[in-house]
Amino acid sequence: MTTNPGHAERTVYLDHASTTPMLPVAIEAMTARLAEVGNANSLHASGRGARRVVEEARETIARSLGCRPGDIVFTSGGTESDNLALKGIYWARRAEDARRVRILASAIEHHAVLDPLVWLADAEGAEVELIPVDDRGRLDLAALRESVERDPEGVALISVMWANNEVGTIQPIADIVTLAGEHGIPVHTDAVQAIGALPVDFAASGVDALSLAGHKVGGPYGVGALIVRRDLRVSALVHGGGQERDIRSGTLDPPAIAGLAAAIEASVKGQDEHATRLTALRDDLVRRVIEVVPDAHLHGDPEHRLPGNAHLGFPGCEGDSLLMLLDARGIECSTGSACSAGVPQASHVLLAMGCDDDQARHSLRFSLGHSSTQADVDALVEAIGPVVERARTAKSGLR
Amino acid sequence: MTTNPGHAERTVYLDHASTTPMLPVAIEAMTARLAEVGNANSLHASGRGARRVVEEARETIARSLGCRPGDIVFTSGGTESDNLALKGIYWARRAEDARRVRILASAIEHHAVLDPLVWLADAEGAEVELIPVDDRGRLDLAALRESVERDPEGVALISVMWANNEVGTIQPIADIVTLAGEHGIPVHTDAVQAIGALPVDFAASGVDALSLAGHKVGGPYGVGALIVRRDLRVSALVHGGGQERDIRSGTLDPPAIAGLAAAIEASVKGQDEHATRLTALRDDLVRRVIEVVPDAHLHGDPEHRLPGNAHLGFPGCEGDSLLMLLDARGIECSTGSACSAGVPQASHVLLAMGCDDDQARHSLRFSLGHSSTQADVDALVEAIGPVVERARTAKSGLR
Repeated sequence: MTTNPGHAERTVYLDHASTTPMLPVAIEAMTARLAEVGNANSLHASGRGARRVVEEARETIARSLGCRPGDIVFTSGGTESDNLALKGIYWARRAEDARRVRILASAIEHHAVLDPLVWLADAEGAEVELIPVDDRGRLDLAALRESVERDPEGVALISVMWANNEVGTIQPIADIVTLAGEHGIPVHTDAVQAIGALPVDFAASGVDALSLAGHKVGGPYGVGALIVRRDLRVSALVHGGGQERDIRSGTLDPPAIAGLAAAIEASVKGQDEHATRLTALRDDLVRRVIEVVPDAHLHGDPEHRLPGNAHLGFPGCEGDSLLMLLDARGIECSTGSACSAGVPQASHVLLAMGCDDDQARHSLRFSLGHSSTQADVDALVEAIGPVVERARTAKSGLR
Repeated sequence: MTTNPGHAERTVYLDHASTTPMLPVAIEAMTARLAEVGNANSLHASGRGARRVVEEARETIARSLGCRPGDIVFTSGGTESDNLALKGIYWARRAEDARRVRILASAIEHHAVLDPLVWLADAEGAEVELIPVDDRGRLDLAALRESVERDPEGVALISVMWANNEVGTIQPIADIVTLAGEHGIPVHTDAVQAIGALPVDFAASGVDALSLAGHKVGGPYGVGALIVRRDLRVSALVHGGGQERDIRSGTLDPPAIAGLAAAIEASVKGQDEHATRLTALRDDLVRRVIEVVPDAHLHGDPEHRLPGNAHLGFPGCEGDSLLMLLDARGIECSTGSACSAGVPQASHVLLAMGCDDDQARHSLRFSLGHSSTQADVDALVEAIGPVVERARTAKSGLR
């Protein structure tokens, strides 16, 4: 794929769930700070200036997301935030009561949650239980309740994502919080896909910890946050200068933090309008793709769903072939499956939703975002028919 | 210190060891990428473009620092790099041989090394031994040898910084590598202060792992690297998508990585000239400050020393008072001591060098960098006399 003669001049970017372009306000807020100097931990005027940038950003984010400024711990992104939440809360809760070794999470968490859980099980004696989801990708609340009630004193924490990154299904966070609250169990949620796409209010949600990432909300890469109630103990994952309540050491990054705050503020302010616009575009995309490819079908929950997410199955195709054929026409999307070392693997999310291996591998995720237009949808609708036909021919060996 | 009427219009920034302004080439390389989209792990053209930015940066850094591109693990900065090196190498070496629980480090390491060591001792059964330094801050090689030879099979790793961040003393890395090599013990070095200031060649140095940070070399905050030999096993600290050889998960940050590479390339190319220029400025600073304040004295090693570092003791003064009085005149420096919760603490570096508590608290670190000029030195020399006088009066209570 290094030469790409058939590549369209205009890229149709339908992969906003992987990363979305920086918003102009975020680029502006960030670049305005790049030439400034001053370590936010230094006592002199330049240091205090850098500190002011960080604290103003913290206040902006707190206002946007319904938390207190002191609840925000800046990190390097969503993966670190998830790792810090899971390991930090597990360690702290176990230290308070040695019985607390159970961690309950949905079976469809992101790898930034699943992989730390594997590590906690292997290296730290955690007993991890993955709670099933239904065929639309919604957590099975009865199964969660049963698991909690089997041994509530043993549960260190519950971690369920706000909305799934692959199929877009929104999880019943309020119900999970109510259930956990009956037993005083803290709830963490990976809200990386939710900020700016859905209404998210930290205090009102009742969760104890929430992960977010800059580059998923129109902010920069390399920055994110764990919002965590100040009275919940969290052990540090990275030790050093004692920044961020001693939970996350490392020199603070004022330009990226300013960019993150600008992106969150803008995307939360525009969330309602954005969601309405994307939902209409997305519904149009799904309807017209299915018109062209009648046996294509939508995965996930048609109702409780991220506005920009269209996850579609194309029977008789390999998702990776579809991806490459669309890419050759300048249309960019994702299979939503992890591809390690060139070997395509079936998505654990689709498998958990009851798809078989073949079904799980014939899917594509189209994800819309702030720069998406009707023309993007039109381009996909125009391309998808011949692309699916070609992929089917390739798969059946009739070249 | 919120109002500052006496503040000079021009800031004299003498705190480059805390953080140094971004080089214009680094700002340019970074801002050129901010508006681009594409997750470096995505398979489509935008993703491959982002991956190309990352891999070209990796090659640039490898060329500049004498390592292979595959040795470089990008991280969020120096603190994370140090944490990953210490914990990751400790875990991997102990997993290979359960006897390996000893970690030897100098007594004057940065907190990004010392604090992970405390955690490893408390939580992971590590036996940490801090090796003393002489009165100039050079590691006591005989003490290191004695400690290694007491039980070489038990040593998981040795960690000694390339050059000290407070007093600027350069450590005998070559001798440490030779000694460690006799017993097959890996050596990690925190080279955060050394890159661009001293000649650093990873392969030639013989170290197994080396930490660096973007914002100390004229690159951005929030990015750094651990350079680590590919054949040395390192356990992951942050788990998730499996990026960076599975050692460090998290979405890669192409703009920051491009900025880091530009900064490293430029600062390594200019290192020799830069060092010559800063050494002359620094020597002038030290000589003239001591002319004005005859009992002031230089800490650290006059010979094996970072070019930009002037760490001076001012008997009869509180370092923090000096810092604030200079700051009021627009001159910014550091005490080099950790100030937690407003309580000044004596520097562990100066205490390890044999200073008493009072000596350790009357010191200031002036650190020069790429934007430093003769006018900065002149401004300090003009201010230091009255400032020291005022600080002494304040301390003796004779206001």
